[in-house]
Amino acid sequence: MSDALVRLIASFRKLPSVGLKTAMRYAYKIVEMSTPEVHEFIAAINEAKNTIHFCKECGNYTELDVCERCQTAEKHTICVVKDPRDISAFEKMGTYNGLYHALHGTLDFQKGITAEQIRVKELIQRLTNVSEVIVATNPDIGGELTAAYLAQLIKPLGIKVTRLAHGIPMGGEVEYADELTLSRALSDRKEM
Amino acid sequence: MSDALVRLIASFRKLPSVGLKTAMRYAYKIVEMSTPEVHEFIAAINEAKNTIHFCKECGNYTELDVCERCQTAEKHTICVVKDPRDISAFEKMGTYNGLYHALHGTLDFQKGITAEQIRVKELIQRLTNVSEVIVATNPDIGGELTAAYLAQLIKPLGIKVTRLAHGIPMGGEVEYADELTLSRALSDRKEM
Repeated sequence: MSDALVRLIASFRKLPSVGLKTAMRYAYKIVEMSTPEVHEFIAAINEAKNTIHFCKECGNYTELDVCERCQTAEKHTICVVKDPRDISAFEKMGTYNGLYHALHGTLDFQKGITAEQIRVKELIQRLTNVSEVIVATNPDIGGELTAAYLAQLIKPLGIKVTRLAHGIPMGGEVEYADELTLSRALSDRKEM
Repeated sequence: MSDALVRLIASFRKLPSVGLKTAMRYAYKIVEMSTPEVHEFIAAINEAKNTIHFCKECGNYTELDVCERCQTAEKHTICVVKDPRDISAFEKMGTYNGLYHALHGTLDFQKGITAEQIRVKELIQRLTNVSEVIVATNPDIGGELTAAYLAQLIKPLGIKVTRLAHGIPMGGEVEYADELTLSRALSDRKEM
């Protein structure tokens, strides 16, 4: 295999969850593309890298200094997520009108990730007119830990702190639910 | 979502089997990469596109005019495959020393792909010193059709035409074999 192909495959493997076989298919596709198509591809990478950065308020991706959402959102509620990509999931849902805040990580004692290394300080600074903080970190160890930490920090400020509900996913089957999900669904059961 | 991000996502979706969610993850990763990393990525794409083309003999990818394999291989056997990526699979196996020939497609009457549109003429021109043609197209409709067509064309030249064996994959289980594979495995059974 040619050196140029090996290098391109190595580059594609830096993308998330791309293994050798997938990287090879991508590299072959690049070679098969027309030259204008490849130029367009490169231009898109360059343009995105040069124009997109993090909103200095919420930490989401934006081409602006402060993103549109931070400028126009209803400012009494703030939804705290781990990564900007989690914001995309909320946006697709389309029924939430408040602010977002991407922490860019969650607490992890094993990896030595403390509150100083994620955007907690920036969150606290944004709470002036906020009456509810919705903690939407993932229901894993780091996410739960971060949620507990934030609740302890924010509740004394007289601000309501809530957590996304966990349970059987809509369309999911009880039979196939894992034990943790099922026990959570049971303990959080609602009266009909 | 910013226009630059939308365009980058659209570019990534041109890669094989990349849907919206995967393209978004790749685009986010590009934005998160350091500038030198992105430049390296772009350089690898450019280099591959500018230096790699098809070997004029076998149709595989190469940086040369005639690829190394065509220059050094044992020239009595030629293994015919659909795509250059199939050659990679053989190369990984490592026990075949003969020539390759990538057809760049298989016959497809529905899509109107005839022998003139794949590299059949180029194959026939290479058969001077060849004593066996191994047809290694996929065991699907197009692959079987192409194999039958090539056999009809090449056998009258006094050259042996063989086809890869089909059956239960090694490590596979009879229970989970599809009907076609099982019936092929049965009809091609070997005496022990």
